[in-house]
Amino acid sequence: MKKLNIGLIGYGFMGRAHSNAFRQANHFFDLKYQPVLKAACARNEENVRAFANSAGWESYETDWRKLVERDDIDVIDIAAPNNVHCEIAVAAAAAGKMVLTDKPLAMNGIEGREMVEAVKKAGVPNMVWYNYRRVPAVTLAKQIIDEGKLGRIYHYRANFLQDWTISTDLPQGGQALWRLDVNAAGSGVTGDLLAHCIDTAIWLNGGISRVSARTETFVKERFHNLTGKVEPVGIDDASLFMCDFANGSLGLFEATRYARGHKALYTFEINGQHASIKWDLHDAHRLEYFDHRDEGKLRGWRSIHVSDNGGDHPYMDHWWVPGLQIGFEHSFIHQVADFLKGLETGEVTQPDFENALITQNVCDAILSSGKSGQWVQVEN
Amino acid sequence: MKKLNIGLIGYGFMGRAHSNAFRQANHFFDLKYQPVLKAACARNEENVRAFANSAGWESYETDWRKLVERDDIDVIDIAAPNNVHCEIAVAAAAAGKMVLTDKPLAMNGIEGREMVEAVKKAGVPNMVWYNYRRVPAVTLAKQIIDEGKLGRIYHYRANFLQDWTISTDLPQGGQALWRLDVNAAGSGVTGDLLAHCIDTAIWLNGGISRVSARTETFVKERFHNLTGKVEPVGIDDASLFMCDFANGSLGLFEATRYARGHKALYTFEINGQHASIKWDLHDAHRLEYFDHRDEGKLRGWRSIHVSDNGGDHPYMDHWWVPGLQIGFEHSFIHQVADFLKGLETGEVTQPDFENALITQNVCDAILSSGKSGQWVQVEN
Amino acid sequence: MKKLNIGLIGYGFMGRAHSNAFRQANHFFDLKYQPVLKAACARNEENVRAFANSAGWESYETDWRKLVERDDIDVIDIAAPNNVHCEIAVAAAAAGKMVLTDKPLAMNGIEGREMVEAVKKAGVPNMVWYNYRRVPAVTLAKQIIDEGKLGRIYHYRANFLQDWTISTDLPQGGQALWRLDVNAAGSGVTGDLLAHCIDTAIWLNGGISRVSARTETFVKERFHNLTGKVEPVGIDDASLFMCDFANGSLGLFEATRYARGHKALYTFEINGQHASIKWDLHDAHRLEYFDHRDEGKLRGWRSIHVSDNGGDHPYMDHWWVPGLQIGFEHSFIHQVADFLKGLETGEVTQPDFENALITQNVCDAILSSGKSGQWVQVEN
Amino acid sequence: MKKLNIGLIGYGFMGRAHSNAFRQANHFFDLKYQPVLKAACARNEENVRAFANSAGWESYETDWRKLVERDDIDVIDIAAPNNVHCEIAVAAAAAGKMVLTDKPLAMNGIEGREMVEAVKKAGVPNMVWYNYRRVPAVTLAKQIIDEGKLGRIYHYRANFLQDWTISTDLPQGGQALWRLDVNAAGSGVTGDLLAHCIDTAIWLNGGISRVSARTETFVKERFHNLTGKVEPVGIDDASLFMCDFANGSLGLFEATRYARGHKALYTFEINGQHASIKWDLHDAHRLEYFDHRDEGKLRGWRSIHVSDNGGDHPYMDHWWVPGLQIGFEHSFIHQVADFLKGLETGEVTQPDFENALITQNVCDAILSSGKSGQWVQVEN
Repeated sequence: MKKLNIGLIGYGFMGRAHSNAFRQANHFFDLKYQPVLKAACARNEENVRAFANSAGWESYETDWRKLVERDDIDVIDIAAPNNVHCEIAVAAAAAGKMVLTDKPLAMNGIEGREMVEAVKKAGVPNMVWYNYRRVPAVTLAKQIIDEGKLGRIYHYRANFLQDWTISTDLPQGGQALWRLDVNAAGSGVTGDLLAHCIDTAIWLNGGISRVSARTETFVKERFHNLTGKVEPVGIDDASLFMCDFANGSLGLFEATRYARGHKALYTFEINGQHASIKWDLHDAHRLEYFDHRDEGKLRGWRSIHVSDNGGDHPYMDHWWVPGLQIGFEHSFIHQVADFLKGLETGEVTQPDFENALITQNVCDAILSSGKSGQWVQVEN
Repeated sequence: MKKLNIGLIGYGFMGRAHSNAFRQANHFFDLKYQPVLKAACARNEENVRAFANSAGWESYETDWRKLVERDDIDVIDIAAPNNVHCEIAVAAAAAGKMVLTDKPLAMNGIEGREMVEAVKKAGVPNMVWYNYRRVPAVTLAKQIIDEGKLGRIYHYRANFLQDWTISTDLPQGGQALWRLDVNAAGSGVTGDLLAHCIDTAIWLNGGISRVSARTETFVKERFHNLTGKVEPVGIDDASLFMCDFANGSLGLFEATRYARGHKALYTFEINGQHASIKWDLHDAHRLEYFDHRDEGKLRGWRSIHVSDNGGDHPYMDHWWVPGLQIGFEHSFIHQVADFLKGLETGEVTQPDFENALITQNVCDAILSSGKSGQWVQVEN
Repeated sequence: MKKLNIGLIGYGFMGRAHSNAFRQANHFFDLKYQPVLKAACARNEENVRAFANSAGWESYETDWRKLVERDDIDVIDIAAPNNVHCEIAVAAAAAGKMVLTDKPLAMNGIEGREMVEAVKKAGVPNMVWYNYRRVPAVTLAKQIIDEGKLGRIYHYRANFLQDWTISTDLPQGGQALWRLDVNAAGSGVTGDLLAHCIDTAIWLNGGISRVSARTETFVKERFHNLTGKVEPVGIDDASLFMCDFANGSLGLFEATRYARGHKALYTFEINGQHASIKWDLHDAHRLEYFDHRDEGKLRGWRSIHVSDNGGDHPYMDHWWVPGLQIGFEHSFIHQVADFLKGLETGEVTQPDFENALITQNVCDAILSSGKSGQWVQVEN
Repeated sequence: MKKLNIGLIGYGFMGRAHSNAFRQANHFFDLKYQPVLKAACARNEENVRAFANSAGWESYETDWRKLVERDDIDVIDIAAPNNVHCEIAVAAAAAGKMVLTDKPLAMNGIEGREMVEAVKKAGVPNMVWYNYRRVPAVTLAKQIIDEGKLGRIYHYRANFLQDWTISTDLPQGGQALWRLDVNAAGSGVTGDLLAHCIDTAIWLNGGISRVSARTETFVKERFHNLTGKVEPVGIDDASLFMCDFANGSLGLFEATRYARGHKALYTFEINGQHASIKWDLHDAHRLEYFDHRDEGKLRGWRSIHVSDNGGDHPYMDHWWVPGLQIGFEHSFIHQVADFLKGLETGEVTQPDFENALITQNVCDAILSSGKSGQWVQVEN
């Protein structure tokens, strides 16, 4: 068993999910590498100490530069706001560390390309936490598509709907609310929510060639926790776009934080000549499948409970028995397991930085189209 | 086109549904017989006149004996309370009329047998309005089962849940509330709701050999509209039973009018060795189907939208286009169409009185078991 | 009771639905006017005779001009392809007839304006069959919105998905397939399907100011039934658009006939500050409602079974009992009932031609934007 | 932080779930006690070593008596077949250990009472793993009921449907299949599945006074892994029962392993005067709730996504963000957390042995009634 020492930056929602994944992977997957929760890092010492304690980290740091310099760290995992991804990743790569970062890759494509170049130059393994690829139902969708069951694809539609920022009293900025602060987040729902939809879409349906978008900021100003004043809101509250995929299918995407009644409604649907697939994060353990080749009178959308531990369903043989759900955090455990297996086999675990840059470029094109009102080609 | 003159007794909910079926059948089905809405009959002249007018009946009577005697009537259709089914049916048969009656067949098996003998002796076509057999999704279930797709059957479960009598202020007896009056209804949910479940069950899964039941009256007394006094409630408010089918499968049934949130939740499910089927009246146009022989990773309950007008789904080629629902009343239209087709071909349209007597006998056994607490053999 | 003599042009799917509505309305609604199915009209004599016979029309014509000229006709109802709406409607109005036409109003806005002017000049009642407004669940949505339960609106999304033209072997043109022939239909899914979505959207959420669309024709050429040759396909197979509503909310719409597994999946969702609403034609009797003001731990999407006949749900007091569905065709019956009631009261029944022209103008803007790739202002 | 040394017996499905719960509880709950995974125990040395290694146990034993004798063990946790619960628990209690055991408590009530007496005499904390009480949606149901929101209760129905023993080729007995061996399991689905349903039912709806049951063994003989011969099957394959609750409501329960299409379909529904509740393990993160007091036109079953981490939903403030599911195993983590909290506060964590004996007595009554065909009073 080879130990792999992890240094984590950030202790929010994602910091907790990553920590759990590092702790749990080897209990459920047979792996040659084993993560060691070596050090957690954040600026506030009291908070990071408490977090390290509860989440099982051996030590802590308050300066990410120190973490990057530590000899006993093999992997730098960035679970901090988007505006520090690039600087930390580039430094970590330069220090010869493997680098993982939360999604989106960066504030924009320019930063993203710098990060890709840094890890390539350093030759270090790298990965972005687009965790939804490894929800078993989503992985199953990929298998079905790769087997050619759908035939020619006509339509892809996805949305990611939330409702947590409707109140105008909600401030922006700071610890828990950096996602509302354009300086920390780079964009609003485009980078936060659509990025997930786009990563999955490209994985399942191939590249996006051009987009036409409509972005909107419903609440124009909010109190800012960092400045102590009411400030203009710089992020997009809602972002809708139409697109063309390279395979000739049409895409329709929408993300918002103003859809009352939806908490994390990430759904996608893909319509092919022979068959169609639907998925919904609110019931993440189910995949809906329709096959026109079924006997006529028996055709219907099948609700597949993706919980077979006998080999039918990806990842599920590592968990419980048929009919029993796993949770949100398991997608992160699967990603760690795949990353460790990749180190073992030498195969690159996706999405790496280069792969995640494609999604970043689509996000950039969306924001650009949202401003210009024009169709925008996606940079390749 | 042969005219078939109908005389209808009763103008309540069922009287309206029957009338509509007689009016509509020939507009959607190609038939050699055509019902003529000749006369409606009820005791209250003002009401029956208004009903005849709105529902399209040519004339009206206030005494069912007169109706039965009319030479211009070919068919007597009884949509009146259960306590008059037997007397009217026997008289109608004796007068040489075809006889249709609403379900259940009678107040009990004794009456039922008398009715069967009467129509047999008279040699007149007869039928009971167990309309749910002719909801297309239910008919489709029958086709699937008859094709042997389910294999050996292990379980049949059904319930019929309502919530309209929870209030203790609701009176019993009289026009709209005769179903709460044991003298008019014979029983409560057993004859009203379970009878539907049993008719479908026997049709789909064969005979029932014995039952063990639990009946309950939650509200022990109610104001009686006919006596003007608070009177004991003689009907069963809830009725549950376990049973053995002749094919070795186990049955579990429940009906109640005290299930808050359910209006007419008639559901059944049948589990076979290879496949299972579910149906729910609240979404009557859907049939759920699971087939274990599907490819492992793609197995799931299929939600079949039973609306194909191209030949895949029974009756639906007479209606609209795929994806569009029909309503509750269409099951009655289908029953009329099948009855008329049966007159044309000479084939008996089911359920006739004899067939409906089987369900009546199961109801009797349930009520008997509910009293004795013992398993009771069903009379054959 | 005042008789209202109807002359119907066309005997396809819509001709059958209109006929049924005229026959049924007075049996379920208390109205002062009663439609008389006076004459059906179509070019093929054999077909129109058979149709008139089965659908209950007293006579037939083979030339619509004759029908328009008949003194015994009060109302001309156009259930023929889009390319004849304008000519017939203008002639009928000139002859002093009331005019009903199937949707969309016309081939385009120019024709639509001509029709509006004709009926205004003639001063005749007129209406377009956007029947989905009168599905009880949709009418209930309107009531909820009009009561202000949703608060400020942020999002409206709708789609209308079908899958019946995926096969490249399907020809275009002629009796049953005129919807694929651009000369008869004017457009593809834009006028056929999106028009329904837009009519409902404007009714529920107010005017649309501008659109950005993407239209696509997946199958570029098909055999043409009228020319006997393979011909280019002129219609849009799929049509997607983003839009701005006048109230500041964002709209996202999609229609296609290439979404495998969907037969007539017309859905809409509207997200407000306090509450949201969803509907789906595949389960047309249900309305989904989420209210954030519900007690926190009990908040959830409510699945309202719109079948209360006690007054809670629009139109349903004319039908059966709670829990029992009505069908697709009932929306047409409701529209006839409302139209007749409008004649009685003098109130204009919507949508009239003028109202339907608004939807036509949005359709024109979509098709224009689909060609130019630009945002297009909707003409008013 | 007080360390609590655990000794686990068994390494199957439940052994893995318990191990995970001990490992995870303190990472997500703020507790004064911390479990230490001290030793795992099973007869096969190779297997138990591998298990201890992957699941994180510090040591292992191959004789449970040695484990019970070890001074460094505070808690004995029994995740072994039912036939050893009693002997081990009694010995562990006598050795002064706290005792946890998987459900059902014992082979029958006689053993159960012996176990209750043993832990009482020893004065040691004890608990049975009826984990489903601590699925957040089920705990929420309990809260709603305890607040009195349902009013008088009329009906309780539950079932637990599986389909994994339909094949006659499946053997009985031995490691993975002891549940089919009556000598190891005591009963079939009654103790395995109905026990869960009964525990929840009594917790939510109070005591059961009498039952009438129907048990069946569909496959009468199977190859036995321990004897190497085809042997009679002694367990019940299916078990159905009706019952009376002390509060006057009627119960209807069913469990089977022959319901094709269901993997672990544990559902319950409770109907009260004002409101009703439904739950389904297949979508364990949702609770369905209907409240008749809602405004008439807006009444409907609410699908509550029990994932609020802001305080509305039990346990969920320890997990992720709204809209994100947790898994099956989290119910065990919650049970450990509650048990540790109980040690801290001195409050008994339920269900303890005494409480679980009530369910055992109902199971005994079911099996007895299944044999006699009579209603059987539940022993208290």
